[in-house]
Order: sequence, then C-alpha cells, then structure tokens
Amino acid sequence: MSFQKLDALCRRLDALDHALAILGADEATHMAVGGGEARAEAMSVLAGMHHRQATDPRIEEWIGAAAAEELDAEQEAALREFRRRYVDLTCLPAEFVERQTRTRMRCEQLWRELRARNDWAGFAPALDGVVQLAREEAAMRAGVLGLAPYDALMEQYDPGNRVADIAPVFQRLKAFLVDFVPRALAVQEERLAARPLRALSGPYPAEKQRELGLAMMAAVGFDMTHGSLSISHHPFCGGVPTDVRITTRYRTTEFLSALMGVLHETGHALYEQGLPREWAHWPLGKARGMAVHESQSLFVEKQIGRNPAFWRWALPVVERHLGESWTLPDILAHVHHVERGLIRVDADEVTYPLHVILRFELEQELIAGRLATVDLPEAWDAGMRASLGLSTIDDPANGPMQDVHWPSGAFGYFPSYTLGAMIAAQQWSAIEREIPDVGDQLAGGQFEAVNDWRRRHVWSQGSRFPTPELIARATGEPLNADHFIRHLELRYGS
Amino acid sequence: MSFQKLDALCRRLDALDHALAILGADEATHMAVGGGEARAEAMSVLAGMHHRQATDPRIEEWIGAAAAEELDAEQEAALREFRRRYVDLTCLPAEFVERQTRTRMRCEQLWRELRARNDWAGFAPALDGVVQLAREEAAMRAGVLGLAPYDALMEQYDPGNRVADIAPVFQRLKAFLVDFVPRALAVQEERLAARPLRALSGPYPAEKQRELGLAMMAAVGFDMTHGSLSISHHPFCGGVPTDVRITTRYRTTEFLSALMGVLHETGHALYEQGLPREWAHWPLGKARGMAVHESQSLFVEKQIGRNPAFWRWALPVVERHLGESWTLPDILAHVHHVERGLIRVDADEVTYPLHVILRFELEQELIAGRLATVDLPEAWDAGMRASLGLSTIDDPANGPMQDVHWPSGAFGYFPSYTLGAMIAAQQWSAIEREIPDVGDQLAGGQFEAVNDWRRRHVWSQGSRFPTPELIARATGEPLNADHFIRHLELRYGS
Repeated sequence: MSFQKLDALCRRLDALDHALAILGADEATHMAVGGGEARAEAMSVLAGMHHRQATDPRIEEWIGAAAAEELDAEQEAALREFRRRYVDLTCLPAEFVERQTRTRMRCEQLWRELRARNDWAGFAPALDGVVQLAREEAAMRAGVLGLAPYDALMEQYDPGNRVADIAPVFQRLKAFLVDFVPRALAVQEERLAARPLRALSGPYPAEKQRELGLAMMAAVGFDMTHGSLSISHHPFCGGVPTDVRITTRYRTTEFLSALMGVLHETGHALYEQGLPREWAHWPLGKARGMAVHESQSLFVEKQIGRNPAFWRWALPVVERHLGESWTLPDILAHVHHVERGLIRVDADEVTYPLHVILRFELEQELIAGRLATVDLPEAWDAGMRASLGLSTIDDPANGPMQDVHWPSGAFGYFPSYTLGAMIAAQQWSAIEREIPDVGDQLAGGQFEAVNDWRRRHVWSQGSRFPTPELIARATGEPLNADHFIRHLELRYGS
Repeated sequence: MSFQKLDALCRRLDALDHALAILGADEATHMAVGGGEARAEAMSVLAGMHHRQATDPRIEEWIGAAAAEELDAEQEAALREFRRRYVDLTCLPAEFVERQTRTRMRCEQLWRELRARNDWAGFAPALDGVVQLAREEAAMRAGVLGLAPYDALMEQYDPGNRVADIAPVFQRLKAFLVDFVPRALAVQEERLAARPLRALSGPYPAEKQRELGLAMMAAVGFDMTHGSLSISHHPFCGGVPTDVRITTRYRTTEFLSALMGVLHETGHALYEQGLPREWAHWPLGKARGMAVHESQSLFVEKQIGRNPAFWRWALPVVERHLGESWTLPDILAHVHHVERGLIRVDADEVTYPLHVILRFELEQELIAGRLATVDLPEAWDAGMRASLGLSTIDDPANGPMQDVHWPSGAFGYFPSYTLGAMIAAQQWSAIEREIPDVGDQLAGGQFEAVNDWRRRHVWSQGSRFPTPELIARATGEPLNADHFIRHLELRYGS
C-alpha cells in the first residue's frame, strides 16, 4: 500500500518533470522572444510544486512502511532510488537552500558581468560566499550519508563515485597526458608537414547540414519517432525519453562542429530513448548519472564519430549531402586536431582531461578548506603550467572564471566529463572483445550490434546500480584508465 | 488576506494553465509522433492537479472572507470572476463529472468510427446517453445559478447570454437569410456569367505562403515578439498571451484557405496578446468568452480580410510573395464565394448562420426534452430543407453527425459562432461611425486605428463585463442583427 502511494506520487512528479522538460526545451527552440518572463514564472511555480510534493514529510513514512511490505526485486530497487531522491532533496534545511539559492544566483549574475571585464578581484568575494556554503553543504550531506564531504557532493551526480577510487585513476591519466600531449602535438606537426591541412571552406548551407545531421542521427540509432532535431544557441539534449529534443547550431563556413555536436547529443539521446519504459516514472527508470550520461554522448562522438572506420562510411554520406568530396586523411586531420588551449569547452579529447583533473584537484582543496578562494588564480596558474605549459595568471577570465559550474555551486560535477570519456573507452574495449569486427561494422554503417551491447549493459539498466557497479558489470572490471590511454595512443600517438 | 490567498492560488493555477497550453500547442506542432502517450499521461495528471487545486473547499471560505475585506474596484471584479470559476468547477458532483466524462469520451470515440460509416442507428444510443446527462447537468447548473437550464449551459461559454435576448435576434437573422441566400446566389451567378472565375492554379510553395502569412499577420497587428506561426493538421490559436501559437496548413494548389485561416487565427491572437497583463493570472484577465473570442477572429477574417478595401492593399503583397498578379474583381470572386452546402465548417459567411441557428434551435429542444435524440435526423432534415433547401435524411453523417460538439457534450456552444459574426459586424459599424475613413485606412494597410479601438473596447477589458454588457459598452447598443444584415447586403446583395 505504501509502495503504491510512492508509485502514485512518482506519476505526479513525473508529469511535472515532463512539463518542465518540454517547457525548458521549448524555451530554447520555439518560444517567442517576449515569452521569457511568463515562462520563467510558470516554470518556477511548477518547480516549487515539484519540490513541495517530492519533499512531503509523509514520504518518509511511506518509504519506511514500504520497506516492510512484500516487494519484488524491481520494487526493492525502486524503493532504494525513491529513498535516495528523498534524502537528496531533504537533507538540507529549507532555510539553507534558500540562502544558497540566493547566493548562487547573485554570484552567477556577477560572473556574467565580471568575467567579461576580467575582474577577479570584484568576483572573488561572491565566489567565496558560494564556496563557503558549498563547504557547509558538503558537511551536512556527509553527515546524512556517512561519506567524506567531497564524496557526498559527487554522490548527487554519480552515486557510488569516491575520491579514493577516482583520484588514483586520474593521477595515472594525468601523468600519462603530461608526457603525451607534446608527443601528440609533434606527431600532428609531422603529419601536417607531410600533408598540409585542407581547409573547410564552404559555404555549407544550414538546411543541408541539418539533413546531413538527421541522416547521421538516424544511422547511429536515434529513433526519429521519439525525438527531433532543432536549432538553439547552446546545443543540448532535453525533452523526455519518448520525445527527446536535441539541438545544434550551424556555421556556414564549416560543417564539423555542428555534425560532431549532433553526434554528441545523439549519444545522450540514445541513452534517454533506451531507458526502461516500464520504470519511466520512477527514479529507478532515470539515467544513472552524469558520468554515465557523458560516457554515452562521448561514445557516439569520440569512439564512433571520430573513429577512422566510421569516416570510411561517413565520407560518401557527407558528399551526398554537401556535394563535397574528402579523402580520409584530409578529414581526419580536422577530426583529430589537437591543440593546447586555456578553455576547457574548446579542448580536444587529448587535452580535455587535464582541464578537468585540475578542477577536480582544486575543488577538493576548496571544499576541504585547504585552499582559500582568493588564492585560486595562483593555484590555477600553477596547475595549468604544470599540465599544459600555459599561464593564466594575468587572465583570470580564461582561468578560474571560465566556467559557470563554481559560481552556480556545482562542486563535484567536473569529474563526470573525464569519467565519461574513460567509461566510453572502457566500453569500447569491452565491445571490441565481444564483437571483434566492430571496426568493419562501423565502416559499413552498421551500428546495431554496438547499440545492442549498450542497450543491454547501460540504457536498459536505468538507475539499477551505482555508477561503479554499472561500469564493472558492463565491462567486467572497475574503472581503468588503461583503455582511454590505449585509445589516445592509437589515435594520436603515431 | 483572503484575497491574497486567492491571488497566490491563481498564480499556481496559471502556471499549470501555462504548462497545459504550451504542451497542447507543442503536441500539435513539434512533438515527436511517438511522444503522444506520455504527453497525454502528463497532461491528464497536470489537469487533475489543476482541478484539485481550483476546487479546494477552502476557496469558498476565502471568497467569502475576501468579500468582507476592503477591496478596490479591480479586486472586486477579480473576486467576482474567482467566484464564477469556482462555482463553474464545483457546481456538479464529482461522481457526476466522472460519469459524464466517461460517457462523452465513449460517445466521441464511437462518433469517429460510426460517422465514417454513416451509421446513425448505432450512434444514436450513445449520443442519447450524452444528451440525458446534459439535461441533468443543465438542471443542476440552473439550480445553482438561478437560470433557465439552457441559459445555464450557455453561461459556461459566454456569461450573460440568454435565450430571451438571443433567440429574437437569431429569428430575425434567419428570416432575412432564408430570402437572402437565393438572392446572393443569383447575384453571384450573374457576376460569374459576365466575368468567368479565374482559377487559382499554383503551385504556391508552402514556404512562400508562410512568408505571405507572416507579412499579413504582422501588418494587421500580430506582435511577432509574443507569438509565432507553425504548421498543424488542424489550424488553431493556442499558447499563452505572452507567446501565442497560431498554426495553419498549406495546400500548394491554392493560397486563400491558408491565408484566410492565418487571418482568422490572428484575430484570436490579437485578443490574447491584448489582454490586460497586470491581471494575467486572474480569471478576470482572461478573454471574456467564446462569442467575444470568435468576434475577434471573424473581425480580422471577415470584416478586414474579406473587405474589398483590404484587398486593394493586399494584392501587391500577394504579388510580392507569390509572384502572381490578380485584379480586385478576380480575387473577390474567390474571397466572396457563396455556396449552399451540408457542412457547417465549409460554409461561407452568408450561409453559416443558418447552420448555427438550426443547431441552436435543436439543442434547446433536446435539453428541454421536447425532442428525443432518436428523432434528430428528421428534425435536422426539416430544418435544413426550410433554411437552405437541402435534405440530409439519407445522409446523417453530413447531418446531425457532422460535428464533434454534441458527442463531446458541448451544448450551448454553437450560438457563439454566429454571435461572434454579429458582434464583429456591430463593432465594424461602431468603428465606421468613429473612424469615417476606415475603408481608406485598410486600403492603405493602416490597421492601427482599428486595433486601437478594439484594444480599448475589447482586448484590455478582459473579463470585466458579462458578454452583453461588453457589447453594449463597446458599440453603444445591445446585440443587434441589423449590422450583420447590412454587412451581408453590402457585400453580397448587389
């Protein structure tokens, strides 16, 4: 009976989630420009309704009573995820959440303004307010969950991820990359000396790029009856599993950024479309977490979409849609371009992890109180010099002010990006063992076997297992940097 | 304090209304085909939340207590409309509403199936179930509101409309039209004999028709920053006042049906966009009712969009977008085409009221119990023969089975269509008195003065006055068929 009450509650919350997801996607794609204020008001009221219903004190009683009921294995798992959500939403006092929300919003607004003016001194006090509240939050979450403070923050994004497991793996990857980046750059230089870069010239009309994107989406498994592709300023994957809204934006001077973006979002979309329908309204039926989600987008973008085998199939498709013929080496020179830079979001797959690991290290220090907010620029600069040989000491806007995550209070999120890249590579290794001709399959435009593997091992599992267990069950071993390292060696090392 | 509780409640209900409106418009325009089931589930849960909150028994106390508070004139008006909505939503027992919803849904499903098979005998029992419940509903609403039963049904759609006022006006219009339709057809025949019809041949590409529609929308006053035009199977005006979604559909063989449809929906949209923003979340800030809404769409479609003066301005616009040159007489032969037919939704503005008045007369008899459902085909046939000289006795699918209104239980709605046409004509007369050169303004593409009049007298008034009072305040007299009759005489009588 109590389980049924939770089930009914989940249907109500899911209806509000559905509305918020579609209203959010609509806002970025189809909403009239003057509709923003009323939309924001409506969404904030709906989010409030969601929060009030999801934190109803009776839920605790229902969870307790349901635990004593006779439940099958699925219901047991569902109950565990109900509880996780309830604890996540209620472990902070309402007064604290309100104070934190105000502080974060103010800091984010300041960030938009002061980043443009490269004004660290003006920004630091606001960020420090957010950091201090994040420390308090970490301590409170840690107390409730019985975890270390930073682990308790990560737990929001990927249940089961612990610094004790991740830090050594990141250490190993970092040690490798610090040597490998110069090597990959040298290899690239040599290759470009032998074969100069063929420029993307265009113009590539947006409508043709869109048709190309749709053809690629459909080929790699996007279910066109349960989703669509639109245009938005910032690409995203939103909507609901039965109607996944992905977006991109087009530049007519080149087609790769839109195409790679579409493949990335298609990876997210495949996960959503592949989630177990029968659990759809339960937390159990949602995607496991941020690292796993990122692993699915990076799988399609990097493991498939930047794979030379894939491009053997893709080049004629590009030619058909854009009327332009490319050789494999010419296109791969773009697809595999490596460049050291200050900005994380512009980084390639070789240098990207160094950006993430720096943030992972610094935010642990910040949360632990071993690093003061005011000292961030020096620490950041030291880290960037050590890992990428670049200095940001005179350019905080492109240093610790470049991301929205910290001003918005999202500590513990950054590791997800590189965990995602590593999980994708580890899954690719497992698939190669199980499907030895997978490269030929990509070259032939065959994605069914790869998708079937991921559907069985990842998509259909919803939130059944903590992230580390999901990885281990899917790939036969815990998170292991070897696979990602091997992937980079193969693609960029020679 | 109690008023503030009602105000806060309205903000919550308005957020749900916002979500339902956008989700509904999205479903018809951008939703993936496979998203329907989850969308229906989400919308029905949200509608349930709305109903539960809007019928909370505490509202009655708040309304009572607020009436004793010191309120300004706006708040008094708002309170009156709070009460109207609350009574409308709570005057029927929940058990009855559930039974009625089931009966209506089943009848609508049967209607879709049996109309296609022209099977009146199979359909009649289901329709009779709906009619019987409508009689019960009318009696209950009548008791609560102190109105006659059919008036109590109309009250849902247009507060203040009474058979005692409308029936004589409709009688007079009907008596006029029974003579006038043959006369208008004779005039048309003579004109076509002198100047044969120039066919619309096309092809008219959808994209060009869309650009033409957008140009016309903008010209007649649609605020493009607070709305948009999309494609859907059935044209509609939806969304919210700050983001009005209108739709159309295109046939490449002719452009007038899409264009006239866009103008019609633009009329609805102008009303929504012009509603008072400061009352937006109160019932007081919503459009007054169905007849007034239809008056605004028909004003733009018929009074403006089929006005010869308008076409003096519009022809070069059409030529610019479609690359086709038309003379005024050639285009007006299409825009003013009159034809007797069986189907209401296909009727022109001359014959349309006869379809509506027949339904108005028959549904009063049905509700009063003076007409049995089983006898509808004969009564319908007699009415159609008397008014349009057409028989439907062997063709019930194109007789009493043609509309969804009765199967879905919407008795009291039909009059709105013709009331709308009459109100639009009456407003046009008032505008002509106030702006003598209005015809020249249309011919010059100037719509500001006309829109300003409507903004002041209609749009900005929200639900401040009952429908008859709104008409009288705007036009200086009660509903009067003379204006519509004069309009038809002028346009079709010579």
